[in-house]
Amino acid sequence: MDTASLKKLFADVKRGKLSPDQAVQHLRHLPFEDLGFANVDHHRALRVGMPEIIFGPGKAPQQLAEIFMRLAKHGHNVLATRVSGEQVRAVRRKFRKAEYHELARAITLTRDPTIHGKGKIIVVSAGTSDIPVAEEAVVTAQIMGNEVQHLYDVGVAGIHRLLARRDVLTKARVIIVCAGMEGALPSVVGGLVGVPVIAVPTSVGYGASYQGIAALLGMLNSCASNVTVVNIDNGFGAGYVASIINRLE
Amino acid sequence: MDTASLKKLFADVKRGKLSPDQAVQHLRHLPFEDLGFANVDHHRALRVGMPEIIFGPGKAPQQLAEIFMRLAKHGHNVLATRVSGEQVRAVRRKFRKAEYHELARAITLTRDPTIHGKGKIIVVSAGTSDIPVAEEAVVTAQIMGNEVQHLYDVGVAGIHRLLARRDVLTKARVIIVCAGMEGALPSVVGGLVGVPVIAVPTSVGYGASYQGIAALLGMLNSCASNVTVVNIDNGFGAGYVASIINRLE
Amino acid sequence: MDTASLKKLFADVKRGKLSPDQAVQHLRHLPFEDLGFANVDHHRALRVGMPEIIFGPGKAPQQLAEIFMRLAKHGHNVLATRVSGEQVRAVRRKFRKAEYHELARAITLTRDPTIHGKGKIIVVSAGTSDIPVAEEAVVTAQIMGNEVQHLYDVGVAGIHRLLARRDVLTKARVIIVCAGMEGALPSVVGGLVGVPVIAVPTSVGYGASYQGIAALLGMLNSCASNVTVVNIDNGFGAGYVASIINRLE
Amino acid sequence: MDTASLKKLFADVKRGKLSPDQAVQHLRHLPFEDLGFANVDHHRALRVGMPEIIFGPGKAPQQLAEIFMRLAKHGHNVLATRVSGEQVRAVRRKFRKAEYHELARAITLTRDPTIHGKGKIIVVSAGTSDIPVAEEAVVTAQIMGNEVQHLYDVGVAGIHRLLARRDVLTKARVIIVCAGMEGALPSVVGGLVGVPVIAVPTSVGYGASYQGIAALLGMLNSCASNVTVVNIDNGFGAGYVASIINRLE
Amino acid sequence: MDTASLKKLFADVKRGKLSPDQAVQHLRHLPFEDLGFANVDHHRALRVGMPEIIFGPGKAPQQLAEIFMRLAKHGHNVLATRVSGEQVRAVRRKFRKAEYHELARAITLTRDPTIHGKGKIIVVSAGTSDIPVAEEAVVTAQIMGNEVQHLYDVGVAGIHRLLARRDVLTKARVIIVCAGMEGALPSVVGGLVGVPVIAVPTSVGYGASYQGIAALLGMLNSCASNVTVVNIDNGFGAGYVASIINRLE
Amino acid sequence: MDTASLKKLFADVKRGKLSPDQAVQHLRHLPFEDLGFANVDHHRALRVGMPEIIFGPGKAPQQLAEIFMRLAKHGHNVLATRVSGEQVRAVRRKFRKAEYHELARAITLTRDPTIHGKGKIIVVSAGTSDIPVAEEAVVTAQIMGNEVQHLYDVGVAGIHRLLARRDVLTKARVIIVCAGMEGALPSVVGGLVGVPVIAVPTSVGYGASYQGIAALLGMLNSCASNVTVVNIDNGFGAGYVASIINRLE
Amino acid sequence: MDTASLKKLFADVKRGKLSPDQAVQHLRHLPFEDLGFANVDHHRALRVGMPEIIFGPGKAPQQLAEIFMRLAKHGHNVLATRVSGEQVRAVRRKFRKAEYHELARAITLTRDPTIHGKGKIIVVSAGTSDIPVAEEAVVTAQIMGNEVQHLYDVGVAGIHRLLARRDVLTKARVIIVCAGMEGALPSVVGGLVGVPVIAVPTSVGYGASYQGIAALLGMLNSCASNVTVVNIDNGFGAGYVASIINRLE
Amino acid sequence: MDTASLKKLFADVKRGKLSPDQAVQHLRHLPFEDLGFANVDHHRALRVGMPEIIFGPGKAPQQLAEIFMRLAKHGHNVLATRVSGEQVRAVRRKFRKAEYHELARAITLTRDPTIHGKGKIIVVSAGTSDIPVAEEAVVTAQIMGNEVQHLYDVGVAGIHRLLARRDVLTKARVIIVCAGMEGALPSVVGGLVGVPVIAVPTSVGYGASYQGIAALLGMLNSCASNVTVVNIDNGFGAGYVASIINRLE
Repeated sequence: MDTASLKKLFADVKRGKLSPDQAVQHLRHLPFEDLGFANVDHHRALRVGMPEIIFGPGKAPQQLAEIFMRLAKHGHNVLATRVSGEQVRAVRRKFRKAEYHELARAITLTRDPTIHGKGKIIVVSAGTSDIPVAEEAVVTAQIMGNEVQHLYDVGVAGIHRLLARRDVLTKARVIIVCAGMEGALPSVVGGLVGVPVIAVPTSVGYGASYQGIAALLGMLNSCASNVTVVNIDNGFGAGYVASIINRLE
Repeated sequence: MDTASLKKLFADVKRGKLSPDQAVQHLRHLPFEDLGFANVDHHRALRVGMPEIIFGPGKAPQQLAEIFMRLAKHGHNVLATRVSGEQVRAVRRKFRKAEYHELARAITLTRDPTIHGKGKIIVVSAGTSDIPVAEEAVVTAQIMGNEVQHLYDVGVAGIHRLLARRDVLTKARVIIVCAGMEGALPSVVGGLVGVPVIAVPTSVGYGASYQGIAALLGMLNSCASNVTVVNIDNGFGAGYVASIINRLE
Repeated sequence: MDTASLKKLFADVKRGKLSPDQAVQHLRHLPFEDLGFANVDHHRALRVGMPEIIFGPGKAPQQLAEIFMRLAKHGHNVLATRVSGEQVRAVRRKFRKAEYHELARAITLTRDPTIHGKGKIIVVSAGTSDIPVAEEAVVTAQIMGNEVQHLYDVGVAGIHRLLARRDVLTKARVIIVCAGMEGALPSVVGGLVGVPVIAVPTSVGYGASYQGIAALLGMLNSCASNVTVVNIDNGFGAGYVASIINRLE
Repeated sequence: MDTASLKKLFADVKRGKLSPDQAVQHLRHLPFEDLGFANVDHHRALRVGMPEIIFGPGKAPQQLAEIFMRLAKHGHNVLATRVSGEQVRAVRRKFRKAEYHELARAITLTRDPTIHGKGKIIVVSAGTSDIPVAEEAVVTAQIMGNEVQHLYDVGVAGIHRLLARRDVLTKARVIIVCAGMEGALPSVVGGLVGVPVIAVPTSVGYGASYQGIAALLGMLNSCASNVTVVNIDNGFGAGYVASIINRLE
Repeated sequence: MDTASLKKLFADVKRGKLSPDQAVQHLRHLPFEDLGFANVDHHRALRVGMPEIIFGPGKAPQQLAEIFMRLAKHGHNVLATRVSGEQVRAVRRKFRKAEYHELARAITLTRDPTIHGKGKIIVVSAGTSDIPVAEEAVVTAQIMGNEVQHLYDVGVAGIHRLLARRDVLTKARVIIVCAGMEGALPSVVGGLVGVPVIAVPTSVGYGASYQGIAALLGMLNSCASNVTVVNIDNGFGAGYVASIINRLE
Repeated sequence: MDTASLKKLFADVKRGKLSPDQAVQHLRHLPFEDLGFANVDHHRALRVGMPEIIFGPGKAPQQLAEIFMRLAKHGHNVLATRVSGEQVRAVRRKFRKAEYHELARAITLTRDPTIHGKGKIIVVSAGTSDIPVAEEAVVTAQIMGNEVQHLYDVGVAGIHRLLARRDVLTKARVIIVCAGMEGALPSVVGGLVGVPVIAVPTSVGYGASYQGIAALLGMLNSCASNVTVVNIDNGFGAGYVASIINRLE
Repeated sequence: MDTASLKKLFADVKRGKLSPDQAVQHLRHLPFEDLGFANVDHHRALRVGMPEIIFGPGKAPQQLAEIFMRLAKHGHNVLATRVSGEQVRAVRRKFRKAEYHELARAITLTRDPTIHGKGKIIVVSAGTSDIPVAEEAVVTAQIMGNEVQHLYDVGVAGIHRLLARRDVLTKARVIIVCAGMEGALPSVVGGLVGVPVIAVPTSVGYGASYQGIAALLGMLNSCASNVTVVNIDNGFGAGYVASIINRLE
Repeated sequence: MDTASLKKLFADVKRGKLSPDQAVQHLRHLPFEDLGFANVDHHRALRVGMPEIIFGPGKAPQQLAEIFMRLAKHGHNVLATRVSGEQVRAVRRKFRKAEYHELARAITLTRDPTIHGKGKIIVVSAGTSDIPVAEEAVVTAQIMGNEVQHLYDVGVAGIHRLLARRDVLTKARVIIVCAGMEGALPSVVGGLVGVPVIAVPTSVGYGASYQGIAALLGMLNSCASNVTVVNIDNGFGAGYVASIINRLE
């Protein structure tokens, strides 16, 4: 439609209904998205395999279910994160096939099972309490078309647990590491591999962990150069960016 | 040599000089790197194209020059970051061909000009004061074998400057965005592209910028999902991780 | 005794001992406590169009309703902010005409529909979660006699949404921008217009957003020079100061 | 020239050199500023009376002098802030008429002495140590075409000093208040007037003043509703936004 | 009894039951409080007029009531602060005469109505929300034998309210000022009087008030030299230290 | 079994089924824990007297009870910390002999009452509110085989209470000191003894205690050189490390 | 104009139109700015014994010397704090009798040696590094007419040093305690005495002392109720408020 | 001499020169240290092997040299930490045998070479920049009579370097781990051993390391239970407490 209105403008010029000068004036007042931004976004959607993700908190169950339905109609995979029990029920009443991932607190609907990722994404967690965040990353990466494997409870205070599974790490094209408390695991993992490591600080801990600040600062100061960081508890973001990296050809 | 000592162990068993039980005891006390870790690291070096980077601060000029020389002898490219004038002179006395990048405060020696990156890395800066950090990223990515292009002084308060150069952004396989003050640029860039964006907060600003905290927090809270973050002023880290991503096949 | 000196002043005028002009001079020099603060305040009230605003939290429903009634009796518009459901019911039992603004969590009573503002106030929000704060600004600016228009969900990660509505922005005499997370929107808006922009950080976000600190710092460090900042979630304050600016002749 | 290239496009369509479809494609790849953004910026420059301000720190004296000269050539007033002694000398070698404001650490060149402001801007400081920041605001507001008056050393611990000068405050259309330490002065001033008050926290103080945090937080939490805040020591920003407000018709 | 055991020691020496050397050894092992510390404490209790105060939180209602009873038996006045409804009921079941101060969340039992204070303590509050903290100070000062007067809702944004009551302030021997938000009131009060001012930051406010940090920092940086500060919301501490000052002869 | 597979490897070499070269290859791919890490851990378990501790929060009651049972089967003492009422009931349904320590919020099962500690551990608390943390330390140290004595409510504002009990302190081989608010007690205790002092900041306090930050900073800055610090409220950690120190021969 | 109204008042008294008593009444009711504050201030000055103190930093040596001279002319004692060597020389060139207190970095000129304090002020320091701050308090209290005694290097890690000097403490009417690092000393001192204790956190320490934050927080959370706090390193403020307390009759 | 004065007291009682009552009075006024505290301290000195350590900063070279000399006269080992070049020269002029440890910035004088430690202390550092802090720990532990071994540059991003030296770790009775940046090393080391680990955060790093906060928080949140923490850069404290632990019999 953007194109349509543009074409009409040029056609009008061609037909002499508008002088070039008048056309320039018109052009200046056309809304930007009419100039193709929407297309760009659409392109991105097609390329990334998912147009939008639903962030659950603050949405009424019914409202969330409706957004979910609207997105599902386009034939894309759908992901809703941090959903409450009520939100889950509202969605599942409409979509029997929507899958609820309890640990990840996420709902997915798989419309398109294509694998877009070129390699495997490995999601690592330091402790068992970090698993919900790790699972959010797993679910996100899966619904975005990746092969995902996890490696949980391999924190640095029992380093042999991680080292014993080095073979798993070496199969990754991208690695996500979720850790709370001192947040040291990404540095160790980063030192063992040559692929990008996305560190997710979690709010796991107490006292001077300050809801993830200790882990966040630790990760930002990682002495392993292949580590980048996302927000505290942001398993979704890590899964998202890992997917984008994993699609790079 | 690790392999040598291992082989000797097995040979001793074969020859009956050691019983299997005794061999197990011996094995347990061999240093770990003798078991192959060094090799693994070597592998990583080969794959990544650079065995080690020299961090300048705190090293005596002579000491830095010697490390530089030792690394150069292996035929790898060499990079020294955050070098002082004295350090530069010490290195250049030994290596006429070592290049000094004044803005980036880095020295490089190119032994191997192979391009390892699959695509282009674009380095973006918000203001002119962010350029030293951006240049550190540029130099790092170049010495690691990438085609790099920059786009400077396109901060969000004059958004048209960025939008006018969208064509540059769309050519990137990985984008690095350096910004101080409010650190908003990675969010805007992230929203315009479908590739990974590595955000580098800089310590540019005054008052409540708190040497980069404002920018760091802004980037961690980016509403664009394809953004990950490295430490404040860590242009090197951004260039490094962008290189690793850009090599993924 | 204040009363006494006032009485004497008026008596002197009555008896011709002072001309009204002289009395005004006298009045100006009478000690502050002896008169005049209420008057002065009254002047301010007349000029600003509203004598006082009721801050809901911590007030018993009945108490709030009584304050509301007392203020309403003076014929002024009345605004109560951050009201609870109970407080709303208590007020509406007395004032059928009091309007409850659910999103803004505010009650208003319009006694005087005069438009005092010289131009339009535009209220912009980055995301849908910032709308309650934005609505508090809207309701405040309206009850203070301004024409208000809003522009919601135009955050920086989808910059085209904002650019497509530039025509709206250009109609503003004052702009209020509410944003949480990285708080980058005021910088972008500030760069697009030549009028004052009042930035309101919101506590929207999680993890390293720290209940609005990230947004607050971002806004204080805005690279757009026409941006000033109010407290986190202070939609009321933004609406108030925008109204004062908009009345300037 | 933007217009020129656009006109050429339409002319080409008109002449049949390009079909409307081809024109749409071309249009999409024209740089944004060609579409009028530059004009918009130009408009802003004309309206605001000054196209750009030079921020001194980090610029070589010669470089700063050249930027200064380039801006001066357009016939606009020029302002360089936070300049060093060397920068001052470099500028004055080229512009005898450039004025150096020692307290404000600013250089100005007045090309256009037009008064754009509709009223008076009053700049208030709490203590004598806040004067450099206050003077930066004064110089900025003056060079942007405002009548400015100051009121210094009227901090809250000697409240009579402020009250004795209420007559000055009442003449303001916009007030700027600079204060360090506890930053209480804007609240008191805000309570005395009905016009917008722009609060500038300064880094004046020691110990728990934390280079202006105490003052900044105090101002953000001001109980006077007509107060907005800019960054610590940002006298320029306060002067700039006050000028914009003071021009509103 | 301490004295008793000491006397016995000396008597034993006198009687030759212990040699001086043995006595020295014994002395070294006597518990410290046997040497008079308890007496000192007792002295303090008598002088201060109250041996101990009960801090309510974390104590079971029955337990608190018993401590209350034990203290009451010594004939001293008793004060329990920050008590819950249940704790109040438990105490009042035993002490009909125990007074509950709802705003202050305190219970008192007056056994000794003597006035120990040499002058008057004035308790000032900035806003109505600060009153609970102020009342805790009032109740503490009263039960410790002081004449107390309060002056509420005289915050700095309406400075005339305070100035109109200067006569009250001038009657004080010690002043307590409770304020949240920007915490500016103690500076203003401190500048108006020549007596000690004890500032109590309160957790009143929202957003960047950070539960009283803004007010605390403001007060620590007060430009009035006669201001000292206690912990956030510590009305009790302010009342206590004001009482001690007011008893000084 | 690790040993078994290693022996088999050497036996295969001996028997000529594998050449030394092939054996080296095999060795490199054996999982790490097969090389003895598990044994090392086992050694640690034997030496320390407890293989693992159960951290209660986040575990379903049934799940916790099952972990508890599994650990109990190995004949070791078992400790579960920070357990909820429900978790306690779930455990006690299976283990009548499991002891619930209400103040410490811990459950223990004593299988092996051996005393491993060489001396006595003294646990000191500043106030009564610090007792839950102190008791967690006590319970931990006891179940790890130590003689433990406590000394509660001896905070620094009544220093005679501590001094009167110096004899208790002098009997300690290791001392744990738990304190909230200003966290000053470890410094005083540290100055009185020549043994290691482990300081535990507690979250006891209000206002500027910031949930234990004040105490934590105080302890890190202790002027007594024999003080080390653990996390806020980490009574378990203090008891654990004290036990390890107390076992040193 | 103030002068005018004052003249008239005195003329009226002279002519018998007003009795002196009536004039006093008039005076009390004249507008604040017109006069009375100066009187009030004057009263305060007379009562407090010193009209103003000179804060050294930021003042040119010559400028400081002139202010010093001006104040000295009124016959009052003069105090300049935090003076530099150059400032000292500038003052002493004019006032041979001005005393320089090297440790306190202060200059005093004693014009009036009257003792105003009713009792003794004791200044206590924890370590030798806290002495400069303590001496600033000593010098301030002395020049304001108090008998002052100090007690240095009695920190809590060697508590016997303090206890051995309890006799000194018991002679105080007001106590000032200066301490860096953990800032625990005021709590211990506060527990030993029944008089007001003014705590001064110092910036002494390193690492997690954060230039006095640790000490400041410790003091604000003091478990001794007779402790109030001033800003970090604010020895002057402590000496000032102690003097005011010590003058109370 | 304390004993002497006490004996004299008892002798006077015995001889009838004092009644027991009079003696009690006398006793109460004897300074505390006369009652044995000094002895206790002396005992501690003997037991710990060093009476006092000299903290260099803030001491004049001559003053430091004199304190050094005084301590040396008692025949104890002497340690001065954080000494400047000038201080070193001043000491060595007097003590040719005083050893200067350049990396550790410490001077020692060994008077008594006895080994007091029961086992070996291992000092580990993450990077080469952490070595100065590590060396301060080494020097402290050595001068206090311990066998010390170090293990440097074994940070977690190259975990094999540490694992290859596990044999060294297993020989320790106490381990000190110094690390900056993310501070992860103590957790890894703690998980590998069963002895106490003392973690020293260093201020090594940049950006979000915040001079050691990141490392400090990481260490406080260590998931290894045998880790305790000292202040940032406090190598001395770690060496001291490790020595005390290592002497435990």
